[in-house]
Amino acid sequence: MVIRIGLMGYGTIGKRVADAVMAMDDMELVGVIKQTPDYESEVAINKGIRLYTYDDKISKFEKLGIKVAGTVNDLIKSVDVMIDATPDGVGAENKVKIYEPMGLRAVFQGGEEAEVADVSFNALANYDMAIGRRFVRVVSCNTTALSRLIGAFLVHGYRIRRVRAYLVRRGADPREFKKGPINDVVFNPATVPSHHGPDVMTVIPTVDVVTMAVAVPTTMMHLHMVNMEFDGQITRGEAVKVLEETPRVLLFNTAFRKFDSLAQIIEWARDIGRLRGDVMENAVIEDSITVFQNELFLMQGVHQESIVVPENIDAVRAMFRLTDKWSSIRKTDSALNLVTMGKNYNLT
Amino acid sequence: MVIRIGLMGYGTIGKRVADAVMAMDDMELVGVIKQTPDYESEVAINKGIRLYTYDDKISKFEKLGIKVAGTVNDLIKSVDVMIDATPDGVGAENKVKIYEPMGLRAVFQGGEEAEVADVSFNALANYDMAIGRRFVRVVSCNTTALSRLIGAFLVHGYRIRRVRAYLVRRGADPREFKKGPINDVVFNPATVPSHHGPDVMTVIPTVDVVTMAVAVPTTMMHLHMVNMEFDGQITRGEAVKVLEETPRVLLFNTAFRKFDSLAQIIEWARDIGRLRGDVMENAVIEDSITVFQNELFLMQGVHQESIVVPENIDAVRAMFRLTDKWSSIRKTDSALNLVTMGKNYNLT
Amino acid sequence: MVIRIGLMGYGTIGKRVADAVMAMDDMELVGVIKQTPDYESEVAINKGIRLYTYDDKISKFEKLGIKVAGTVNDLIKSVDVMIDATPDGVGAENKVKIYEPMGLRAVFQGGEEAEVADVSFNALANYDMAIGRRFVRVVSCNTTALSRLIGAFLVHGYRIRRVRAYLVRRGADPREFKKGPINDVVFNPATVPSHHGPDVMTVIPTVDVVTMAVAVPTTMMHLHMVNMEFDGQITRGEAVKVLEETPRVLLFNTAFRKFDSLAQIIEWARDIGRLRGDVMENAVIEDSITVFQNELFLMQGVHQESIVVPENIDAVRAMFRLTDKWSSIRKTDSALNLVTMGKNYNLT
Amino acid sequence: MVIRIGLMGYGTIGKRVADAVMAMDDMELVGVIKQTPDYESEVAINKGIRLYTYDDKISKFEKLGIKVAGTVNDLIKSVDVMIDATPDGVGAENKVKIYEPMGLRAVFQGGEEAEVADVSFNALANYDMAIGRRFVRVVSCNTTALSRLIGAFLVHGYRIRRVRAYLVRRGADPREFKKGPINDVVFNPATVPSHHGPDVMTVIPTVDVVTMAVAVPTTMMHLHMVNMEFDGQITRGEAVKVLEETPRVLLFNTAFRKFDSLAQIIEWARDIGRLRGDVMENAVIEDSITVFQNELFLMQGVHQESIVVPENIDAVRAMFRLTDKWSSIRKTDSALNLVTMGKNYNLT
Repeated sequence: MVIRIGLMGYGTIGKRVADAVMAMDDMELVGVIKQTPDYESEVAINKGIRLYTYDDKISKFEKLGIKVAGTVNDLIKSVDVMIDATPDGVGAENKVKIYEPMGLRAVFQGGEEAEVADVSFNALANYDMAIGRRFVRVVSCNTTALSRLIGAFLVHGYRIRRVRAYLVRRGADPREFKKGPINDVVFNPATVPSHHGPDVMTVIPTVDVVTMAVAVPTTMMHLHMVNMEFDGQITRGEAVKVLEETPRVLLFNTAFRKFDSLAQIIEWARDIGRLRGDVMENAVIEDSITVFQNELFLMQGVHQESIVVPENIDAVRAMFRLTDKWSSIRKTDSALNLVTMGKNYNLT
Repeated sequence: MVIRIGLMGYGTIGKRVADAVMAMDDMELVGVIKQTPDYESEVAINKGIRLYTYDDKISKFEKLGIKVAGTVNDLIKSVDVMIDATPDGVGAENKVKIYEPMGLRAVFQGGEEAEVADVSFNALANYDMAIGRRFVRVVSCNTTALSRLIGAFLVHGYRIRRVRAYLVRRGADPREFKKGPINDVVFNPATVPSHHGPDVMTVIPTVDVVTMAVAVPTTMMHLHMVNMEFDGQITRGEAVKVLEETPRVLLFNTAFRKFDSLAQIIEWARDIGRLRGDVMENAVIEDSITVFQNELFLMQGVHQESIVVPENIDAVRAMFRLTDKWSSIRKTDSALNLVTMGKNYNLT
Repeated sequence: MVIRIGLMGYGTIGKRVADAVMAMDDMELVGVIKQTPDYESEVAINKGIRLYTYDDKISKFEKLGIKVAGTVNDLIKSVDVMIDATPDGVGAENKVKIYEPMGLRAVFQGGEEAEVADVSFNALANYDMAIGRRFVRVVSCNTTALSRLIGAFLVHGYRIRRVRAYLVRRGADPREFKKGPINDVVFNPATVPSHHGPDVMTVIPTVDVVTMAVAVPTTMMHLHMVNMEFDGQITRGEAVKVLEETPRVLLFNTAFRKFDSLAQIIEWARDIGRLRGDVMENAVIEDSITVFQNELFLMQGVHQESIVVPENIDAVRAMFRLTDKWSSIRKTDSALNLVTMGKNYNLT
Repeated sequence: MVIRIGLMGYGTIGKRVADAVMAMDDMELVGVIKQTPDYESEVAINKGIRLYTYDDKISKFEKLGIKVAGTVNDLIKSVDVMIDATPDGVGAENKVKIYEPMGLRAVFQGGEEAEVADVSFNALANYDMAIGRRFVRVVSCNTTALSRLIGAFLVHGYRIRRVRAYLVRRGADPREFKKGPINDVVFNPATVPSHHGPDVMTVIPTVDVVTMAVAVPTTMMHLHMVNMEFDGQITRGEAVKVLEETPRVLLFNTAFRKFDSLAQIIEWARDIGRLRGDVMENAVIEDSITVFQNELFLMQGVHQESIVVPENIDAVRAMFRLTDKWSSIRKTDSALNLVTMGKNYNLT
């Protein structure tokens, strides 16, 4: 069975999900809905992607010589599910205006409120909750990273009392030239907890998660400083082993391998030939992993542009009951050339 | 009694301490030792500050028409105490080479190891420990800010079990154009705890302090996200009251007063006419103050260029038994036009 | 005669003009119109400035305990002229809605189109054109800096054939935390000439000015790289002399005084105690002044937050025929503690 | 004939040249000399690159389990030419210590003085000057970009009187986390002309080139604002045609294709799957191309990490007389998947 997929939105997330869908043998990218003709439209067409747009936008594309395959309606009639990668809040509108009236299933992104979907999703943490669901929301980049991290320890049988996570957010994506800040740290928001903690609890309701967040003038990755309080003891060795065995988690060593900053992690991804220099895995700083009594401390980098891409793929598989959790994770990671479970990127 | 003070180093900290000393009626700035003639030398002279330098540097100054009052030896013979504001590690060398052989007292900065001095100092937290001492070390900006914060609650009789502080450090001071990072978050250091936690414990040995730190591309202020675990309950109202009553702590409200980011705090200082736009107080974000059970969360801005200035003044008073702790704090803050104890900057 | 001034807008420019007006003995700041209660409102009140607002905004201020002196109408009835420092385009609306119907005179800022006023103004270049005018537009920061530079040579009798100026614009002001770019250079605009060249020609129509502009991730100052083609020879010595003799132009030396970057210029202004660290003068980099045949090359820093402040004052004097050009410039500069004509900040 | 190549240095340039050499069928990468074991060493080995190091460094590599193929001497004995991609000034030392004594040919980078080599090289501008030479210096990224631009018009028969170029340099490469500036524009250098103008004249001695340069807090690309004064008329249409026909020059349109900033150019390179997101071509902003009389104005982006890579390949071909200029350019561009001559990336 091949799931026919339509993509609503072709921005930072959308274009990556498009490439990922095309790499799967159990999915077909029927087309992408785009509203503005620009260089990204041309890149899409050169990749063999069919573009669809709203009726009143067609002439804008044609005027620039960019071929449109049809209207939004045309696309919608040809797909089994829409992956909605539109800006925050637009997905909820699309649900009411398009998906529900047309009886379409949909995957939403984390910029939407949790209520938009039947379940908030992370492959490692709650794959089974999405099985057979009609509307699934893949949580945001920060929430995905925290869910994987907490999920890793839960999957291994550890019990966690409280997680405190401190988020140093990138101010904008690399291509967003109008957003700041430039020389500033923004309280984002000033209140505690920031929305990220409660959002993780939409995926993992059993763990108490408190978060604080600021935004800084970088475009590379978010940086999390995490403190996990366990119910019972854990050793550093155990924590490292858990992370080494968890899919979509990579350990980056500073002392020996010279991963001194987030930029080195992206540099590595560029050097090994990752498309767009993407790092879809949690980038845990190995040297930062520290245990005091029942408390674990660590830092991780979160590549906001790409980290949710594999979960969008897995979400579709769960919705259509294509396969089970571990098979889906393995299949996704293999097709995306991520390092697979139990075979972590081994720097030694 | 007027203490005669010499200043070794006239950089970011040194030039601020010079201005502060000149504002005190129980101290006299005899002169400043500088090694390079530049615009800062000229500014100093225009302020009426006498410059001294090493014998072999005198001609460099004279060549540019900058008047030198004498040599290092000349200055040293005329002072009761040296405040050493040289770069990290140089203070320790100066101690061995100059201060000890000459029988001089000295105040060091936090860039030196704790061992350089008899005591690591913060006015609020341990003023009395410095009374009559020969060598005192004013701890660094981050350590000063944490010591004040923890000290505030200790002074009010609270008991604290553990402090976890997450430091988002500015990459460089405004005038340092060669330092980075530019578009990066640096693990600084990658290990946990960073040196800041243990450093706070040189001032407050009774509280367990764990810190993590990263550096980001800003020059304005450090930003701390702090989690304090109390031994017993505390309410948000109590916490706010403690901070309102503590000298050298200001509360900045985001919701009503629009202090949305660190830049607004500096903008406020510029607007009200603070010299250099300095904020020598802890800048606590009022909206971030949150209590869950026995845990307090908050954010604070730390103006790395100026926050240690008042402590340098208080350190001298303690060393020479000029006055007691609260009198010294009040006297310093009054002369520097800081908002004084119990009379916090009241935005309403 | 004391001119009664009302100020519309209290942002980056407005608050500086307010302080400047208060420093003049031939002007009185009757009050400031503000729409949002925030920390800047409180700072204004603490400076003794009366706040006025629109009828429907009064309750917002009162709710936060910020005293309002009256409505917009109240202020307008009490002033001789309004200085409009509202965001781009709002001034033109205010002209039609308020100033013209009320028969009020007004000074506009450079964010408005030239057509808003009877004359586009720069004190050095065309003071006399504004004498007795009803509506005057003080040109923008970049245009002001170029007008002063070109005006300096015209005043000294040189003839200029063409000016080519390359603008490296700061991305945002220090307090603007939402504007970017972060790690990018923006073509701003991509077309040549950028609007700055034609804008200079609204002040100095006799010189051909071509400009290109990009925006970069800084908040400090704009940086101009300028090439002036003279009609006839000029020597470097002559060029330096012209600039030394010109008011509101300062020379900053890199080789000897270590002004290596724009940050050093702001650092100097902070060190000498300038309010807000402002540099209202053109900051010409002395080492960059170079002459090849009939072409002059140089770099200058332009402090976008404050450079137009003295021209707002002079514009009022011209409009009300208070005094002549040179007297006004001298009076403004003296009251603002700028270095006055013929007495340049002499670093040697 | 296959030229056996050794690479000295495996940093930003070195690792790209290594990948490029491996893509050529007339060259063989025998090995790379590296001094520090780190993640880049591991990436190299995973690509099948043999690492060599100095005798006293071997144990450092072995300790971390990184396989070394031999010593510097071992490599040198097995190659026809060394490409030296070491930091500025080290190449000149290597020439004296290693290449000359061993009778080895070498390609140097633009960080070396022109005197290090027999010729300063740019493929388009002076390929033939390097034919049969023993030591060739590929000029720096900025000089390469200017040489291509000027060379394009010279190749088409235009005569150029003077070029004035204004360089807005990136402060550091993406992975360099210690370099700044952060919130500053650095005069780099403050003198005019900067070294870039004379450096272009080592390649094209017949054109007068004056340059000014500043450094800004970005890592993406340099940005040039260029003014070319022709000896005779040129139309905009002619200029566009010249650039469209020139290899290694791409036109990026802002108005229609939304290339609003340098970041969009890199985003495009990432999207189309360029290794590391590299842009080895001059990125000319199409909308900026403007002609007034005999003067051409334009902006171009210069990807400092990769722009010199194709010229390193061509330099080797010229030195060993492998083929003629146009064949080499075509062969290099084809193997690197650059858009080839006369078949420019056509956005319309």
